[in-house]
Amino acid sequence: MRPELTIDPNRGRGKKAVILISGGLDSTTVLALAQAEGYDVAGLSFDYGQRQAIELTAARDIAVRAELRRHAVIKIDLRSYGGSALTDDIDVPKGRDAAEIEDGIPVTYVPARNTIFLAHALALAEVEGANDIFIGVNALDYSGYPDCRPAFIGAFQTMANLATKAGVEGETPLTIHAPLMEMSKAQIISVGTDLGVNYADTMSCYDPVMPGGGEPVSTSDTRHCGQCDACQLRKRGFVEAGIVDPTPYAD
Amino acid sequence: MRPELTIDPNRGRGKKAVILISGGLDSTTVLALAQAEGYDVAGLSFDYGQRQAIELTAARDIAVRAELRRHAVIKIDLRSYGGSALTDDIDVPKGRDAAEIEDGIPVTYVPARNTIFLAHALALAEVEGANDIFIGVNALDYSGYPDCRPAFIGAFQTMANLATKAGVEGETPLTIHAPLMEMSKAQIISVGTDLGVNYADTMSCYDPVMPGGGEPVSTSDTRHCGQCDACQLRKRGFVEAGIVDPTPYAD
Repeated sequence: MRPELTIDPNRGRGKKAVILISGGLDSTTVLALAQAEGYDVAGLSFDYGQRQAIELTAARDIAVRAELRRHAVIKIDLRSYGGSALTDDIDVPKGRDAAEIEDGIPVTYVPARNTIFLAHALALAEVEGANDIFIGVNALDYSGYPDCRPAFIGAFQTMANLATKAGVEGETPLTIHAPLMEMSKAQIISVGTDLGVNYADTMSCYDPVMPGGGEPVSTSDTRHCGQCDACQLRKRGFVEAGIVDPTPYAD
Repeated sequence: MRPELTIDPNRGRGKKAVILISGGLDSTTVLALAQAEGYDVAGLSFDYGQRQAIELTAARDIAVRAELRRHAVIKIDLRSYGGSALTDDIDVPKGRDAAEIEDGIPVTYVPARNTIFLAHALALAEVEGANDIFIGVNALDYSGYPDCRPAFIGAFQTMANLATKAGVEGETPLTIHAPLMEMSKAQIISVGTDLGVNYADTMSCYDPVMPGGGEPVSTSDTRHCGQCDACQLRKRGFVEAGIVDPTPYAD
């Protein structure tokens, strides 16, 4: 099954965009999509005290390979708030099946994360003169995160247009694009593969490991754990897409 | 003229609130209001590379005096985006009259600042279990800032309820309170004075100075410049309220 996604190479011509890039599978696909549509992209990533600093390394590598106009990395300390396995020392759940993963708000939820990330993207867009912001959220695979729903993205866009100079001066309104919103992981992988994304460069594991143990330092040496929720969804996505999974898994 | 503001000492009883405190006149008044209504307050301030670090010192002092349950200070680097006299080396305008101040978006505008600040307040509220967020924005005196308008606050609240666990689980909805929104500076000063706020403790100048020159280090030594837009509005507010201005001005 192929996703119904039209890529218009002229849609972004002459337009600047800001894209949130995490180093993961989804946002790397969004970046490829936006560049295929001709957008001139500034990337935005966060050093937010995530346990997996290797994610940020992957984001930097991806930004360099994609030859972005600019890649801003903003340091914000979400650990001050607590409340999530992605920033705290709570055990990451392993080996859960699809039904368990989709049941309720996951322990890996970071409070208001997408709101904070999009707020910063809005600031960068305003400074850069960009009217288009892209984010790789996805309602199907991550139904447990409230800030990954279409209604959230729509409400953020409404708010953003009231928050900025664009809204006051009657300039081109801001659009928040979430092109993966209705796509399955398999569809995302199919689209990205068609666009030439090398998913071996992307890092989406909640608990990555080095071959000999220890803290991951380079993306090429790091193995995905293969067992956390993100790895389960990733593996299943490649299987369903019928595409060979290039991800190095530990398990 | 007295403001039409009812303070209900039971409204906040047994409720937690998050309040954005900047060390300035407005947010200090909001804090006094919320405490008078019985809210159990966690304060949130930002170290955002503002040129006037003394503002943050004032916020810390105010938080201690108000005996807040918690005062979180989040470091975020808005200077990376550029575009405002409050964080960059652009000259702060001096000696402008009221008409000039109200004409257009001021040079002191920070891109998406209130969106970013409220996004972080939302994260703290979620972790703290607070359903009430207070912000000292004001549509009358600062009409040039798009993110100080009532429509912005309303849209943020709608978005916030879709972004968080509250929205998903059908718990008590979040409310964004902007009690100063329709008040003049004189009204704000009247209300705060009635509540016992000592405005000499607050710091709202864009270009504060030490008596002998040099970088301000303590709030008690620092003088307001008396000439920037914020000082002009502050001075006029005390005059209009008929209240003696305790602010130490250099000019």
